[in-house]
Amino acid sequence: MAYFEKIQKIEYEGAASKNPLAFKYYNPAEMVMGKTMREQLRFAMSYWHTFTYMGNDPFGSATMFRTWDNHECSMEIAKERVHAAFEFMEKAQIPYFCFHDRDIAPEGKDLAETNARLDEIVAVIKEEMKRTGIKCLWGTTNAFGNPRFVHGAGTSCNATVFAYAAAQIKKAIEITKELGGENYVFWGGREGYETLLNTNTELELDNMAKLLKMACNYAEEIGFTGQFLIEPKPKEPTKHQYDTDAATVMAFLRKYDLLDKFKLNIEANHATLAMHTFQHELNMCRINGVLGSVDANMGDPMLGWDTDQFPTNIYDTTLAMYEILLAGGLTKGGLNFDSKVRRASFEEEDLFLAYIAGMDAFAKGLKVAAKLLEDRVFEDFKDKRYASYKEGIGRDISEGRADFKTLEAYALANGVTLNTSGRQEMLEAILNQYILETK
Amino acid sequence: MAYFEKIQKIEYEGAASKNPLAFKYYNPAEMVMGKTMREQLRFAMSYWHTFTYMGNDPFGSATMFRTWDNHECSMEIAKERVHAAFEFMEKAQIPYFCFHDRDIAPEGKDLAETNARLDEIVAVIKEEMKRTGIKCLWGTTNAFGNPRFVHGAGTSCNATVFAYAAAQIKKAIEITKELGGENYVFWGGREGYETLLNTNTELELDNMAKLLKMACNYAEEIGFTGQFLIEPKPKEPTKHQYDTDAATVMAFLRKYDLLDKFKLNIEANHATLAMHTFQHELNMCRINGVLGSVDANMGDPMLGWDTDQFPTNIYDTTLAMYEILLAGGLTKGGLNFDSKVRRASFEEEDLFLAYIAGMDAFAKGLKVAAKLLEDRVFEDFKDKRYASYKEGIGRDISEGRADFKTLEAYALANGVTLNTSGRQEMLEAILNQYILETK
Amino acid sequence: MAYFEKIQKIEYEGAASKNPLAFKYYNPAEMVMGKTMREQLRFAMSYWHTFTYMGNDPFGSATMFRTWDNHECSMEIAKERVHAAFEFMEKAQIPYFCFHDRDIAPEGKDLAETNARLDEIVAVIKEEMKRTGIKCLWGTTNAFGNPRFVHGAGTSCNATVFAYAAAQIKKAIEITKELGGENYVFWGGREGYETLLNTNTELELDNMAKLLKMACNYAEEIGFTGQFLIEPKPKEPTKHQYDTDAATVMAFLRKYDLLDKFKLNIEANHATLAMHTFQHELNMCRINGVLGSVDANMGDPMLGWDTDQFPTNIYDTTLAMYEILLAGGLTKGGLNFDSKVRRASFEEEDLFLAYIAGMDAFAKGLKVAAKLLEDRVFEDFKDKRYASYKEGIGRDISEGRADFKTLEAYALANGVTLNTSGRQEMLEAILNQYILETK
Amino acid sequence: MAYFEKIQKIEYEGAASKNPLAFKYYNPAEMVMGKTMREQLRFAMSYWHTFTYMGNDPFGSATMFRTWDNHECSMEIAKERVHAAFEFMEKAQIPYFCFHDRDIAPEGKDLAETNARLDEIVAVIKEEMKRTGIKCLWGTTNAFGNPRFVHGAGTSCNATVFAYAAAQIKKAIEITKELGGENYVFWGGREGYETLLNTNTELELDNMAKLLKMACNYAEEIGFTGQFLIEPKPKEPTKHQYDTDAATVMAFLRKYDLLDKFKLNIEANHATLAMHTFQHELNMCRINGVLGSVDANMGDPMLGWDTDQFPTNIYDTTLAMYEILLAGGLTKGGLNFDSKVRRASFEEEDLFLAYIAGMDAFAKGLKVAAKLLEDRVFEDFKDKRYASYKEGIGRDISEGRADFKTLEAYALANGVTLNTSGRQEMLEAILNQYILETK
Ligand SMILES: [Co+2]
Ligand SMILES: [Co+2]
Ligand SMILES: [Co+2]
Ligand SMILES: [Co+2]
Ligand SMILES: [Co+2]
Ligand SMILES: [Co+2]
Ligand SMILES: [Co+2]
Ligand SMILES: [Co+2]
Repeated sequence: MAYFEKIQKIEYEGAASKNPLAFKYYNPAEMVMGKTMREQLRFAMSYWHTFTYMGNDPFGSATMFRTWDNHECSMEIAKERVHAAFEFMEKAQIPYFCFHDRDIAPEGKDLAETNARLDEIVAVIKEEMKRTGIKCLWGTTNAFGNPRFVHGAGTSCNATVFAYAAAQIKKAIEITKELGGENYVFWGGREGYETLLNTNTELELDNMAKLLKMACNYAEEIGFTGQFLIEPKPKEPTKHQYDTDAATVMAFLRKYDLLDKFKLNIEANHATLAMHTFQHELNMCRINGVLGSVDANMGDPMLGWDTDQFPTNIYDTTLAMYEILLAGGLTKGGLNFDSKVRRASFEEEDLFLAYIAGMDAFAKGLKVAAKLLEDRVFEDFKDKRYASYKEGIGRDISEGRADFKTLEAYALANGVTLNTSGRQEMLEAILNQYILETK
Repeated sequence: MAYFEKIQKIEYEGAASKNPLAFKYYNPAEMVMGKTMREQLRFAMSYWHTFTYMGNDPFGSATMFRTWDNHECSMEIAKERVHAAFEFMEKAQIPYFCFHDRDIAPEGKDLAETNARLDEIVAVIKEEMKRTGIKCLWGTTNAFGNPRFVHGAGTSCNATVFAYAAAQIKKAIEITKELGGENYVFWGGREGYETLLNTNTELELDNMAKLLKMACNYAEEIGFTGQFLIEPKPKEPTKHQYDTDAATVMAFLRKYDLLDKFKLNIEANHATLAMHTFQHELNMCRINGVLGSVDANMGDPMLGWDTDQFPTNIYDTTLAMYEILLAGGLTKGGLNFDSKVRRASFEEEDLFLAYIAGMDAFAKGLKVAAKLLEDRVFEDFKDKRYASYKEGIGRDISEGRADFKTLEAYALANGVTLNTSGRQEMLEAILNQYILETK
Repeated sequence: MAYFEKIQKIEYEGAASKNPLAFKYYNPAEMVMGKTMREQLRFAMSYWHTFTYMGNDPFGSATMFRTWDNHECSMEIAKERVHAAFEFMEKAQIPYFCFHDRDIAPEGKDLAETNARLDEIVAVIKEEMKRTGIKCLWGTTNAFGNPRFVHGAGTSCNATVFAYAAAQIKKAIEITKELGGENYVFWGGREGYETLLNTNTELELDNMAKLLKMACNYAEEIGFTGQFLIEPKPKEPTKHQYDTDAATVMAFLRKYDLLDKFKLNIEANHATLAMHTFQHELNMCRINGVLGSVDANMGDPMLGWDTDQFPTNIYDTTLAMYEILLAGGLTKGGLNFDSKVRRASFEEEDLFLAYIAGMDAFAKGLKVAAKLLEDRVFEDFKDKRYASYKEGIGRDISEGRADFKTLEAYALANGVTLNTSGRQEMLEAILNQYILETK
Repeated sequence: MAYFEKIQKIEYEGAASKNPLAFKYYNPAEMVMGKTMREQLRFAMSYWHTFTYMGNDPFGSATMFRTWDNHECSMEIAKERVHAAFEFMEKAQIPYFCFHDRDIAPEGKDLAETNARLDEIVAVIKEEMKRTGIKCLWGTTNAFGNPRFVHGAGTSCNATVFAYAAAQIKKAIEITKELGGENYVFWGGREGYETLLNTNTELELDNMAKLLKMACNYAEEIGFTGQFLIEPKPKEPTKHQYDTDAATVMAFLRKYDLLDKFKLNIEANHATLAMHTFQHELNMCRINGVLGSVDANMGDPMLGWDTDQFPTNIYDTTLAMYEILLAGGLTKGGLNFDSKVRRASFEEEDLFLAYIAGMDAFAKGLKVAAKLLEDRVFEDFKDKRYASYKEGIGRDISEGRADFKTLEAYALANGVTLNTSGRQEMLEAILNQYILETK
C-alpha cells in the first residue's frame, strides 16, 4: 500500500516554481563539473530522524503520528516502515539511505532474537532495494540508547558491556555488508565521560582503540570493503565525547596507528557544537586526506544542543560543496540528511518539504561552488597570496634548504617585504555575488 | 632603588591572618607529598602581564602608571623594569619567571639592533638572577604583536615574514639558554586564519611544522636542553588558531613526527575558550605523557575572550594539582601565572594581592589534592569501577585475547552484568568535604 | 510499606563524618542569623526530577527502575509514588515539596477525568502532609509536555489551546490552594518561538499577559493568597523563550502592569543558560524587590542545555545565600531542588546522596554568607567605595540637586578626584578564606 | 587635497559587474516600496571604526597607516581626518555619519581645552557638511576610554567622575545639535560591573537613571529635538553591561519612567553577544515601538567578542530590513556601519571594499524584504496561523471577554482543535528562493 498517497513524486520545476512540493534547484540529471547533480550530491535519507523520530524532546512527548506505525506488533511496524521509507525515498528522489541497527528492527528478548529480527527486516529491505534501485550509503550501530550503555559501549567500565557492543557491531557490519553498504560509521554516542572524578580516560581510550582494531580485523576476515568512518561530536549526550572534532579523532587514529583504516564522517551541527564552522571541519579532513562522508544538517548557533535541523543556509552548503569538490568529490561518501523536521513540523508533508529544502540548498550550493572553482576566484587569490614561497628564500623554505642560520642571515640583510591586505570583505562580497548570480 | 618600598616581603601567616599582604595557605617550606610546597608548585611570574600590561583593553587606554616606567629612554625603562621585577619576585617569594623577547627589551630600528638590545638586558637580568637566586622557567618569542605578523609568523603567506620569525625564535632560544631557561614555549598568537576564503591551511600547517623542525635542529646544534613546549589556544587573536587544544596539538605533532620533541604548556583560560575544563586538558596531556608546564590563570565562563584572571577557584586549583600529582609532579615545568590584574586593579599593591590570591589558591589546591591521593578516594573508586577488566572476559579484552567472534559468543551466552551507579553527586560531595576540611 | 527500607533517616554527623548517608554541614536546628538552618533554607523536593525522571535523555531510554512504579495501573503507581515521596522527604529531612499537576497524576481521557484524577491524588497527598508535617512550597502546571502545546500554551497560535491551558492552570491553582501551597509558579515551557518566520510575537505576548491577568483575577476570586512566581529561562525547549531572564520578565511585568502581582523564581541553571551568573539574577531580583523563590541546581558552563545538576559548587551556594540574606531571607519562598540525579546515578541510594550533596552545599553556603555579612566584609568595602555620593557634589547628585549645568561647572572647576582600585583579586581571596575557614 | 586619489566615486554597475570598486546591488536612486534606496537605507559612516581604528587588537599593534594622520600636531590630524572622512563619504555615496566626541578631536589638558577643541573641529565639519550635503545621523560621547572611567561613567563609584561624564554628555549633545544630528546615542561602555563583590548595583542603576533624566531635561532646555537612543550590549568591555539587550533596556526605561524619551539603537553584533539573533532584537523593538536606529555590522557566532565585522550575510540583512519595513521604515534612524575592516584588511582601498560589501548586502536585503512583504508570503501565513483568535472562543480571548471559568467550560466541552504544522522548513526554503530569485 502507499503511505504517502497524496504526495506525487517530487520533480524539478525550476527556480520560478511556486509549488512547495517541487525542487527549485535540485535537477538530478543536470551536469555540474562533469557529473550529474545526482552523482555529485549522493543524497541519503537518515532512517532514524525520518522514520523513527516522533517529535519527542526532553520537555515533551511525541507530536508525530505516522500511519505506518499503526500496526499491532513491533516487527510488523518495522516492516511497514521499510515500505514507507522506500516509498518516501522514491518520491523524494533520494538514492541512498543510512541506518542504525536499532532503527530498522526492535530489540528482542536477547541478543540472539535481536539479531534474528535484524535478519528478517534486512530481507525486506533488500527486496525494496532491488525494486527501487536505492542503495545503502552506510550502516551503523546504536550502542548508546539502551540503558546497558549508560557508561559507554567500547569505553564502558563494565567489560561485559564492551563485549556486548562488540557483538552488536559485528552484526551491524554483517548486515551493512549484506545490504551493500558503501561505508560503515562509528559514532560514539556514549563514548566519553560525565565526570573525571570517576573516569579512567586512559583505559577507556585504549579500549576504544582495541574495539576499532577488532572491527578492522573482522571486516578483513569477512571481506567487507566498505569504508570505515568515525563521526566526531564534542558533547551530548555525554558531557565530554572522546571524538570531539576532526583534529581529536585524527590524534586518536594516529596514536593507535589506525589512520589508514578510517576516514571521517563530518556532521555540520557537530562542527558547530565544537565551535568550528562546517567548512573548517571539512577543510581539516580534506588536507589530511580523511574526508569520508558528510552528515548534512544545520545547527542553531544560539543553541547549545544538537538541533539537527535541515540545512537551508546557502553559505554553509556552498562552502561545504566547495571543500568537497576540492577534495575530489564525495567518492564513496554522500550527503546524508542527519536532519530531523522540527517538532512543530509534525505533518507527513513536512518530511517532503524538509528534504526539498535541504536538497535544494545543497543543489544550489553545488552550482555556486562549481562556478567559484571554474572561475578560480579564491584559488587565484590564494595562489597569488602565497606566491612568495615559490621563489627566493620562500622556495628555500618550501624545499627544505633553509635553517635558522640561513633565515637569520636573510632577515638581518633584508628585513621583510611588505604585507598586502587579506581582502576578507571583498572576498565575502564576491561570495555573495556568486551565490546571488550563479544560475 | 626600591620600587615597592611600602611592601614588605610577603610571609606565610596562616589561615587565620587578616593581613591582606600575607600568605594564608602558601607556606613555602611546608612539606607536601615528600617535597616542599615551593618545590611542588614551582611558581613563576609572567613578565608581560605583571610588568608590561598597563590596563589597556579594546575600549580603553592604560589605567596603570608604574614608577619604573618613569624614565626617559625605552632601554632605561627596560632596565629599571628588570630591577622592579626582581624586587617584586623577591618580595612575593616567586622562584621563577617567564618572558617573551619583546617583554624585556624594546624593538630597535632593525633586527640587529633589536638583538643587541636583548643582549644588553639579558646581562642585567643575569645579574639579578645571580643576586636573588630566581630562575628562568621559560622564554618565548612574541611573533604576533608587530604588524609584520598580521598574517601569522610561521604560517604567514609572506615568506620573508617566516624568515624573520625564524630569526627571532633563534635569538629567543639563545637568550633562554643564556638565562638557563628550563623550557622554551611556542604559542602561535597569529598562527591561524581569519577566513578560509583566502587561506591555504595545508601550506600553512606544513610550514609551521618546518619551522618547529628547524627549532629542534638548532636547539640540538647549540646544546639547548630545555624542554620545548607548545601552548594550545583555540581562538583570539585570530578567528581560528591552529593549536586549538591539547588533542589538536597532539594530532599535529604526531602527523609531523614531532611528538618526542615537544610537550604542552596548558593554560586554564585557553582550555575554557576551547570549551574544555582545565582538568580535562591536563588529563589529556597526562595520559599521553606530554604534560610539560602550566599557565595558571582562570577565565570567566560567561565571557568569550581570554580574560587571564588570577586563579582563585579552589575547585580548579585542586583538580589541576590532582592531575599534576598523578603525572608525577611538574618536573621541569611550573605554575606560571599567565594572569593579569583586572584593569580596575591598577594600583601597585594589587600586583601583590593578586599573586597572593593565586598562590594561596594553588597552595590550598595542592594540599587538598595530596590528601585526596593519600586517601585514594577517587583512585579506589575507579579501581573498583573498572575491576571487570581484571578478570574473565574483561581480562581477555585487556590482554588482547578477544576478538569479535569470541566477544559475540560471550554476549550471546552471558548478556551483560548489571551496571552500577557512577555516583557523581556523592563524589562531588566528597570533593567538597576534602576542600573544606583538609588542613 | 517502606520503599527505602535500607536507608535510615539522614542525620547530621558533622564535617568529620565519613558516612555518605549523613549530613556533614546541614544541621537543621542550628541557629544562623537568628533562625534555624531549617527555617533559613526552606529546602524543597521537586516531585518531577525526584519521582518521575527515569533517566531518559534525547539519546537514550530510562536507566532508573523504581519499586514504586511496579504496579499495574497508572493511578496506583501515582498513589504509591506519593507514599514513596513522603517517605523520601521524611528520611532526607526535606520540609517542602513542589509539583506540576502532571507529576502527581496521569492525564485521563479528557480534561474532566484528568481533573478527577488530580483530586483523587491530592487527597492522598493531604493525608501524607498531615501525617508528616511536610508542606507544599509551590504548585505549577505542566502546559508544555502534551503535544497539544506544541506551539505554546498561553502563546499558542491555536485559541482552543489557550483555553485548555487556562482551564489547566485554573485547576492547578485550585489544588495548590487545597494543599496549602505558599506560592504558585509559572514556567513558560513552550511560551516562545521556534522561528520568527511564522510567529506574531506581539499577539503572543499580549495573550500571555491576558492569561496571567486572568490567573490574578481567579486567585483573588477564590482567595488563593499564595505568591505568584514567574521562572525565567532563555531557551529550551523552544529556540527562544519569552521569559528569557529576570530583566526580560520585569520588562514584561511592567509593560502589562503586573509587577505588583508577581515575583520571580530564579533557577541557577536558567541563569547560566542566559549567560548570567546565578548571583546576578538573584541580585537583579533583590534590588527590584521581586525575589520570590529559588530553584536550586547547577548547570555545566561547558554545556548548552539545562543539565539541572544537584548544586555542589560552594561559590554558587555562598553567593546565592549572600543575596538571599541581603534580601531579608526567603520569606515565602524556598530552595527547591529542581535538580536531577545524573542518568548514570540510577540507583535509589543516589537520590539520597544527591540531596545530601545539595543540602550540605547550601548549608555551608549559608554559614559562609552569614559570616561575611556579620563581619561586613564586602558591605564595608562597598560603603567606602561609594562614599563620594554621601557628600559634596556626590550628595547633590544623590539628592537630586544637580543638573548638567551645575555638574559641568563642577567638572570645569575641579576635574575628577583619583579613582582607587576595585581590588577584585583581594576580595576573591577573602571570599576563599571565608569559605575555607568559616566553621 | 585628496586623500583617496586613486579611488573614483563608487557607482552602481549592476549585479554582473566584476569591478570590485562598484556597487552591484546598491542603486541609490532606485525605488523600493515608494522611496529611493538612499531614503530607505539611510546609510551612515562610523567615524571611529573608519577613521580612528588603526588595526590594534589585544595582541598586536596598529597595522594601518593613513596618510591623513601624517601630520605633526594632533589637532592638525583631526582636521585632515575631517577632510579625508568627507572625501570618503562622498566617494562611497554615504549620506550620513555618526561620531563620538573623542573621535573628532583629541582631549586637551583639561575639560575646557577639550571642549574648545571640539568647537574648532565642529566648525570644520560644518563646512564639509555644507559643501557635500552629508548629514549627521547621530553623535555620542566616549565616556569609557579614558582611565577616569575605569569604574564607569554614570555608574562610577566616584561622584566626580559622574559629574565629569555629565559635563561631557552636555557638550556632546550641544555639538550634536550644532551639527544637526537627528539622534543622540547612549552606549554604556563601562556602565556595568566587573565583580558583584565590590558593586552596589542598585545605587549604580539609580544613578544611571538620574543621568539620563538630566540629559532629557537639558535637551528640552536647549531645544535639541533629536531622538535619544540607548544601545544595548551584554558584555565587553565590562564583565556585565547593564544595558544587556533590548528587553533589559526596556525594563530599565519603564522602571524609571523614561520610556517615552528613549528609543533603541540595535547593533547586530551586540544582539549575537546577548545570544539573540539580530532579527529578534529588532522585532522586540518593533512590537514595543522603540526601534530607533541600527548599528549595521555582523559578529562571528563562533567568537565571544565584538568583532564588528562588515555585514555581508544576506539572511541577516534581509530579515533586518524585513523588521524595519514592518516598523514603518527607519524614520529618523539609519543604518550606521558600526563595522571595522579586519586587522588584515589594512589598505585604504579596503575601506571602500568593505563599505561596498556592507551596502550591497543591505541593498539586496532591502529588495528581498520588500518583495516578501509585497507578496505577503510570511504575513499571509501568519494571519492564517493565528486565525482562531478572530472568531469564537479566540475572539472572546482577544477582546477580553474570557476568564478562567468560561475557558474551563469551553475546554471541558470542546477539548482542543487540531494543531497544524509550523512549516519551518518550507518557510526557510521560500526565504531562500526569495533571496536567490528577487531581482
Ligand atoms: Co550525525
Ligand atoms: Co547531530
Ligand atoms: Co598562556
Ligand atoms: Co590566556
Ligand atoms: Co526550574
Ligand atoms: Co532547569
Ligand atoms: Co554599536
Ligand atoms: Co559592536
